[in-house]
Amino acid sequence: MKMAYKTVKGGVCAPQGFLGAAVSCGVKNPKDRRTDLALIYSEHPCVSAGTFTTNRVKAAPVKVTQAHLRAQELRAIVANSGNANACTGVHGIEDARSMAKLIALPLGLKQREVGVCSTGVIGIPLPMDRITPGLALLPGHLNSKGGTEVAKAIMTSDTTIKEIAITASIGGQKVRIGACAKGAGMICPSMATMLCFVTTDANLSKTCLHKTILEAVEGSFNRICIDGDMSTNDTVLVLANGQAGGPRIARGSKACREFREALQHVLLKLAQSCVKDGERVRKFVTLEVRGASTYLDAKKVAEAVAKSALVKASWNGDDPNWGRIIHAIGYSRARIREELIDISYEDKPACEGGLMAKTPHKLLRDIAARDSFTITVNLHQGKADYTIYTTDLSPEYIDFNRSEYSYWKNSGLG
Amino acid sequence: MKMAYKTVKGGVCAPQGFLGAAVSCGVKNPKDRRTDLALIYSEHPCVSAGTFTTNRVKAAPVKVTQAHLRAQELRAIVANSGNANACTGVHGIEDARSMAKLIALPLGLKQREVGVCSTGVIGIPLPMDRITPGLALLPGHLNSKGGTEVAKAIMTSDTTIKEIAITASIGGQKVRIGACAKGAGMICPSMATMLCFVTTDANLSKTCLHKTILEAVEGSFNRICIDGDMSTNDTVLVLANGQAGGPRIARGSKACREFREALQHVLLKLAQSCVKDGERVRKFVTLEVRGASTYLDAKKVAEAVAKSALVKASWNGDDPNWGRIIHAIGYSRARIREELIDISYEDKPACEGGLMAKTPHKLLRDIAARDSFTITVNLHQGKADYTIYTTDLSPEYIDFNRSEYSYWKNSGLG
Repeated sequence: MKMAYKTVKGGVCAPQGFLGAAVSCGVKNPKDRRTDLALIYSEHPCVSAGTFTTNRVKAAPVKVTQAHLRAQELRAIVANSGNANACTGVHGIEDARSMAKLIALPLGLKQREVGVCSTGVIGIPLPMDRITPGLALLPGHLNSKGGTEVAKAIMTSDTTIKEIAITASIGGQKVRIGACAKGAGMICPSMATMLCFVTTDANLSKTCLHKTILEAVEGSFNRICIDGDMSTNDTVLVLANGQAGGPRIARGSKACREFREALQHVLLKLAQSCVKDGERVRKFVTLEVRGASTYLDAKKVAEAVAKSALVKASWNGDDPNWGRIIHAIGYSRARIREELIDISYEDKPACEGGLMAKTPHKLLRDIAARDSFTITVNLHQGKADYTIYTTDLSPEYIDFNRSEYSYWKNSGLG
Repeated sequence: MKMAYKTVKGGVCAPQGFLGAAVSCGVKNPKDRRTDLALIYSEHPCVSAGTFTTNRVKAAPVKVTQAHLRAQELRAIVANSGNANACTGVHGIEDARSMAKLIALPLGLKQREVGVCSTGVIGIPLPMDRITPGLALLPGHLNSKGGTEVAKAIMTSDTTIKEIAITASIGGQKVRIGACAKGAGMICPSMATMLCFVTTDANLSKTCLHKTILEAVEGSFNRICIDGDMSTNDTVLVLANGQAGGPRIARGSKACREFREALQHVLLKLAQSCVKDGERVRKFVTLEVRGASTYLDAKKVAEAVAKSALVKASWNGDDPNWGRIIHAIGYSRARIREELIDISYEDKPACEGGLMAKTPHKLLRDIAARDSFTITVNLHQGKADYTIYTTDLSPEYIDFNRSEYSYWKNSGLG
């Protein structure tokens, strides 16, 4: 049974004891004053957990934060936008460590209590001459209403602020979960980074939090597919400071499951916001694969369809083209039998038993013309399901991603 | 050592004893007279071999031709364009069998001596009322100069005729190989079909021909990547009638290797023509992966880079964006060490040891602005290499593939 959660204001500062701050230091663009450096800080010690990109090329801040996170005691997160600090070698590692150190010192934290994130262009050294003065200013700006400022500062070409906060009853205790994110691949050329920061005042054990975040990300951010590219910097971090009180929630308990459900709700909302904000995106498509032999087969089919350039182009053109969908299913490597496959747009069958259904084409086109619709693929092989949230691929997307020359010009490297 | 081959005229009719024919039967578009039905016929018995799409959704003609090919004695190929006869159920199988039968009868062949191919839209029954009269006309049009007519009739939105014929010295004997093809994925919406027909007068054993075609396709058509979509209908067929004389060439012999090399030369030329004719394509990119641990790793890296929408968009924009390339390498699942990776555009390093190289950005941009260039990735992990031939992804490609509505209108189903 799905729980209902009450939405509250404040983003990552909604849970008790969390402060936020943001400043501009000119990394995004030296010529404007958009904020590009953010800090989240808990006034009390935290347990923490995170998940990271599985790309084998990992940005320096990912490596540094993975090391810092080992003790699961992050209490602050510092993040910059405009430069990913990826493919920057040993200097990049030093720069990421410096960012943690320069925040830890004034806040009286250990360096390993600070998580570091970067999002932006790959392969260019972090401009520490601009970032260092910014870091010095950040702690002075910390305040209990800073959630939205943090959400804004991590945006690159996102067009909407992505934040959410809810209250939930976990083990009978009222707790809050706050979170913000910036969007994925499609939104930004090479700045192909998804960042998500979550705060909560729930009183969680380290093992409960660790397991919970892996499961909740699998049910949310791993279910979105915009352009099939996986970033070097993707990071989800959760900080839990226990200020809501109540007994510590242990792994395997009913309260731990309740927390996972609430966390997954929060992450799924943010993941869907990232998809919807894919720039130059016209469609939000929910793709449900049903009746696969195995979970992995269902996932293979969903990902093959969601990544097909031809399928995505047809969505952009309002074309209910089930032929392209079935051909992507065919090369997905999942176990299928063509003659069993059903495909429908909302409740209207387009393909039944591998053949064209009798639904008038006009009806299907009317559905495909909507901004948002659901496609259901039933393989009739077994009982495994998988749902993915995805988008069309537009001529404007390609155009938008053709060149980063403007960035190179701004950075003085062009 | 690479052999030099002499190019000759005539396409699939260049080898001795092969005839070709094409007629228009209104499957492409009832309103115009473009040819859309083709026949290749050998005056003498042949040995034959083929390779087919690995898509688990296979078109009816693929299934029928696979069955006919079992004895390796195809002597004729009949092909239509405009309709793929895919996802058409048992009726589709019957229609494909009818096509073979209606050609076999007047030519005095067994049904299983005729290969059948279709290319076009998926999921719509083959209009046999138009195809049957066309089939009746075809044999009467057979002639020894029909090669180019065949190559034209299988085109859909291809803009160039793709045919080639060469002479080669195989086991000391002068033989001819002729071939024609129609292009791949990008060229055509849902009509995502690559067809390639090869004829030769070489005197080959069945086992030599079978092994040879698999190897030659692996070194040619499997090395091209336009949009990452794999069709339901892809087919390569080779007919060898032995009219050049000389002893029969056995598998494992020097002559068999010589033939494989000549065949691969022919297929690679056609494969590259398909890539270059990708409509709305601006760039022909040769991507060489070197120094991988294994052949499979080299292939994984090449395919990840060649399929990345972000990498392809950057090529479209003349942007020498090595950051996107390294991030695709990172998610390719190949064994890599970021700090060993070199990436260069022609002979100019863009990335050395995972870091930005010192080559001025302007120099790299000048190379990326060319119509055709080579990118070399060296992983410095081992000795395995893999080369892939690929293209940019253009806004016009997406626009072109947005809708098949015009097709639906023409077919009277819209």
